[in-house]
Amino acid sequence: MTTTPNPLRDPRDKRLPRVAGPSVLVLFGVTGDLSRKKLLPAIYDLANRGLLPPGFSLVGFARREWENQDFRQLAYEAVKEHARTPFREDVWTHLAEGMHFVPGEFSDPGAFDALAMAVKELDTTRGTGGNYAFYLSIPPKFFPQVIEQLRRSGLAEHGPGSWRRVVIEKPFGHNLDSAKELNRTVHRVFPEESIFRIDHYLGKETVQNILAMRFANTMYEPIWNRSYVDHVQITMAEDIGIGGRAGYYDGIGAARDVIQNHLLQLLALTAMEEPTSFSADSVRAEKAKVLSSVRLPADLGRATARGQYAAGWQGGEKVRGYLEEEGIPLDSRTETYAAIKLEIESRRWAGVPFYLRTGKRLSRRVTEVAMVFQRAPHLPFSHTDTEELGQNALVMRVQPDEGITVRFGSKVPGTAMEIRDVNMDFAYGESFTEHSPEAYERLLLDVLIGDPPLFPRQEEVELSWEILDPIEEYWAEHGKPEQYKSGGYGPESADLLMARDGRAWRRL
Amino acid sequence: MTTTPNPLRDPRDKRLPRVAGPSVLVLFGVTGDLSRKKLLPAIYDLANRGLLPPGFSLVGFARREWENQDFRQLAYEAVKEHARTPFREDVWTHLAEGMHFVPGEFSDPGAFDALAMAVKELDTTRGTGGNYAFYLSIPPKFFPQVIEQLRRSGLAEHGPGSWRRVVIEKPFGHNLDSAKELNRTVHRVFPEESIFRIDHYLGKETVQNILAMRFANTMYEPIWNRSYVDHVQITMAEDIGIGGRAGYYDGIGAARDVIQNHLLQLLALTAMEEPTSFSADSVRAEKAKVLSSVRLPADLGRATARGQYAAGWQGGEKVRGYLEEEGIPLDSRTETYAAIKLEIESRRWAGVPFYLRTGKRLSRRVTEVAMVFQRAPHLPFSHTDTEELGQNALVMRVQPDEGITVRFGSKVPGTAMEIRDVNMDFAYGESFTEHSPEAYERLLLDVLIGDPPLFPRQEEVELSWEILDPIEEYWAEHGKPEQYKSGGYGPESADLLMARDGRAWRRL
Repeated sequence: MTTTPNPLRDPRDKRLPRVAGPSVLVLFGVTGDLSRKKLLPAIYDLANRGLLPPGFSLVGFARREWENQDFRQLAYEAVKEHARTPFREDVWTHLAEGMHFVPGEFSDPGAFDALAMAVKELDTTRGTGGNYAFYLSIPPKFFPQVIEQLRRSGLAEHGPGSWRRVVIEKPFGHNLDSAKELNRTVHRVFPEESIFRIDHYLGKETVQNILAMRFANTMYEPIWNRSYVDHVQITMAEDIGIGGRAGYYDGIGAARDVIQNHLLQLLALTAMEEPTSFSADSVRAEKAKVLSSVRLPADLGRATARGQYAAGWQGGEKVRGYLEEEGIPLDSRTETYAAIKLEIESRRWAGVPFYLRTGKRLSRRVTEVAMVFQRAPHLPFSHTDTEELGQNALVMRVQPDEGITVRFGSKVPGTAMEIRDVNMDFAYGESFTEHSPEAYERLLLDVLIGDPPLFPRQEEVELSWEILDPIEEYWAEHGKPEQYKSGGYGPESADLLMARDGRAWRRL
Repeated sequence: MTTTPNPLRDPRDKRLPRVAGPSVLVLFGVTGDLSRKKLLPAIYDLANRGLLPPGFSLVGFARREWENQDFRQLAYEAVKEHARTPFREDVWTHLAEGMHFVPGEFSDPGAFDALAMAVKELDTTRGTGGNYAFYLSIPPKFFPQVIEQLRRSGLAEHGPGSWRRVVIEKPFGHNLDSAKELNRTVHRVFPEESIFRIDHYLGKETVQNILAMRFANTMYEPIWNRSYVDHVQITMAEDIGIGGRAGYYDGIGAARDVIQNHLLQLLALTAMEEPTSFSADSVRAEKAKVLSSVRLPADLGRATARGQYAAGWQGGEKVRGYLEEEGIPLDSRTETYAAIKLEIESRRWAGVPFYLRTGKRLSRRVTEVAMVFQRAPHLPFSHTDTEELGQNALVMRVQPDEGITVRFGSKVPGTAMEIRDVNMDFAYGESFTEHSPEAYERLLLDVLIGDPPLFPRQEEVELSWEILDPIEEYWAEHGKPEQYKSGGYGPESADLLMARDGRAWRRL
C-alpha cells in the first residue's frame, strides 16, 4: 500500500500536515441524509487531500440486508454527487477497499458482536491499530441503546496505545435535565475526553476566523468592548421551511434547534477573552466563561419574541404555513422564529445588549455576527452633513457570502462635506486560492486526530440550556407564537423588541 | 438671463447648494499648461453643474495679440479635451459670452488699466458686483510685478460689499526666507483673508476624506495613536520624469516640490487632533499644531535619503537619466527622490516615526498614507501558524485608485489555524454614484465663495519650510544624490533608512 498523493495540499505549507493515524470510523445511520450529503463526501474529500492513513477503514452499520458492495455503491453515489474535490478513480478505489458493512438492529446484540469482529479483523488486515471512532448519526432516542451495546460488546474498551471515540450530533437534549441525562448515558461508557459533540457551525472557516481575526490582529481588539460597541446582532436566517422534518422539529422549535447551539456558540466566540493558547481546554474554558456570564433580562416578555411562519409566497412559489405542514398538529405552539436579547455580565460587555435571532422562511438565507458601534462621541460637522451617516458596523459573514464587511462613513464626492455610509469588504472566496474545506471535513479529521477545540464540551451544553430553559418555560406559559409572513422579515414582536431599545435589526 | 440648469446635482442633497455669487475670475497665464488642462475645464465643469452665477465672467490676461474670440477658442479646445462633465452646447455658449481677453505684458501699466476698465464694464453689463478673483498661474518671479500692478491700477481695492481675492500656486518660496519675502510682497497689497494659496492636493476628494473618515466614525480614532500605530508611511510616487520642466525643477528638487507642500499637508491631516469645527480657522489651527510639533532626528544623514534617476527602461521605453535631460546641468545635485523620517512631539504620536517619500521615474504612480500598526501584543497561536502574518495596515489611497484598504490577518482555508494577510477594500469610485469633482473644481469654487479651509495659510507654509530648511542645508553640504534605476523603487539609501529601524517601505 502506498500513501495517497495529495494534489490539493498547499506547497507553501511548511508545517507537518495534520493527518489522521491508523483508524476505523464506524458510522451508525449510514443511510441517513447527513451521512449521504455530508459525512461520506467529507471522508472522500479527506482521502483525496491525503489526510487519511493508507489503511483507513469505514464501517457502515444500518438495518439493511446489505453486502459491502451495496454500502460502497451508496457511498459512491454520495461522493459523486456531493464531494467538494474532484473525483479521482484511484482515490475512490483505495478508499472503497476499506469500506465494510455490518447489517443489524440497534437492539440486536449479535449485530454488535459482528461489528466487533469486523473491526478487529480490520486491525489485522488493514493495520487500523485498534483505534475506533463511533459516529452516532441517529436520532437521540437510540443513543442509550447503541452506547450500551458498544459497552456490552467490548467495542468501547481500548487496549494500551489505542483509542475509542464517540461522536454525537446535536440536539444534546431538549433542556438542561435531558442534556444531563444524555450526558450520564454517554459517560457511563465513554470518558469526557473521548466524547466529540458536533456543532457543525464550529467547523466553518468563517466561524474559526472570528478567533483569527480578533486575536491575530491589532486593529480590532481595542474597539471590541463596551466603550465602543453599542450592541451586537447575531443572526441565522433561513429561507426554507421545515421540509420533511416535522417529526424532529415540532416540539423543539427555533430556539432549541439553533440558538441553544449555533448562536450561543457564535456569541461565545465573539465575546470571549483571549485564550492562553488554542488548545481545547483554553478555548473551551473561555467560551464557558462567556456563557456563564450571560444574564437574561428580567422581563422575558419584552426581551424575547417568537413566531410561526404563515402561508404565503416565497421565491415565486406558494408555500404552506407551519401549521399546514405535513405532520404538524393544528394547535402546535412550536416557534419557527425566535429572537432573544441577552447581556453579558463582564467588565468588557456590561451594558452591551446581544440580540440573537433565527427563523425559517425569511426573505433570505444569511448567518452573520454584526458588531454595531456607538456613534462618534462628537461630530465636528454640521448636522445636515451627516444625515445619512449611520453607526459603524463590523459584520462577520458566516454564510453564504463568507467574509467581513466594515460599514463606515465616508465623504460623498462633491463640493460639500457630506458624509454617508459605505462598505469596505473582504470576501473569503476571493482572497484565498485555497478552497475552504467543508465543516464536516474539518470536524471528522479532528475526531480522527483527537483534536477537540472545535467541539463543545458538556459544560457549554449545560450552560446554554441554563440560558434557554427559563425562556422556554416563559413561552410555554404565555400564549402562542405570532404568525409571520413567509418570505418576510419575521414577526412584528421581534421588531418591537429592538424598537423599544431605539434600535433596529439589520435588514435581511 | 436664466440660471443654468444643473443635471448633475444630487436630488437627495437637501442642503442649500454651495454656489458662487456674482464675480469675475481674472486668469493670468491663461495660455499655460495648468490653465488649459485644469483651470479652464474646471470652470466649465462648475458652470455645467450650475454652481456659477448667471453673470459669471472670466477674463484672460496674457502676452498675446488676441481678441476675445481667440481666448474663447483656446478655452473651447481645452474644455472639449479636458472637461470632466459632458459637453453641453448651451452651457458652453452661456459661459463663452462671459469670456473676455486683455492682452498685455506684466510690465505694462496700460495693460492693467485696460484690465481694470474691462472688469468694471463687466460689473455693469453682467452684474458681477465688483467681486474679482485674480488667479496668478504664472512663475513666482512675476508675482511682485503683477501684484504691484494690481495695486497701482486700483484693481486690488474693493468698495463696500464687494471683494477682491488673489490666488497663488505653489511653490510658496524655496525656503523660509523667500517664503516670508513672497508673503510680504502679497501682503503689501492683499490682507491674509484675501489670499488663497493653492495646494491642489487638498482639493482631492480622498484627501478631504481623511478627515471625514477619522472624525465621522467611531472605529478609527481609538487606534489612531502611539498605543497601536507602529509607524506611518506617506508616499507620492510618480512614474514620469521631469518632462519639459527643467527650468522650474532644477535647483528645486523633490523635497521642495512635493514634501514641503503635499506630503506635509497629508501628514498634518493624518496626525491632527479633532478640530472644534470644520471652519477654516479650526482646521488650519490643528494642522499648524502638528507642523509645529514636528521634530527632525538629530542625525540627518541617517534620517534622510535622496536620489537622482539614472537612464534606464520604463514601460518598455528607454528613458534618459536626470542629468541627461534637456536643460539640466551635468553636475546638478538636484534630487528627484527624497525620503525623510520625522517624529511628532505630542502625547498622541510621541515615538511614532512618520516616513515621507516622493520620487520621479519610480515603478508606478501612487499617492497614499499608510498607517502601519504594531503587531498584536500576544499571539495565542503557534509560531508557524503566523509566519505569513504581517502588520495590520490602514491605507488611504489618494491616487490613482482612490479608496481605503485595510490589511489584516485572516485564517487560511484549511484544516489548520494558519493565518495570512488579506486586504479589505473600499473603492471610492465603486461606492458612490456621484462623480468626484476635480480638485480644481472644488478649489476654484471655494475661492469664488470665499471658503478657505482647504487652503494652507502662511503659518503652515512657514512651518513647513522650518522643517525642510535644515534638511536642504544638510544636503547642500553633504555630497550628491545617489543614482537610482528608472522604473524601480528609489535609491538604496532610502531602503537603508527604513532597514536601520527594522522596517521596510511598502512595495510600490
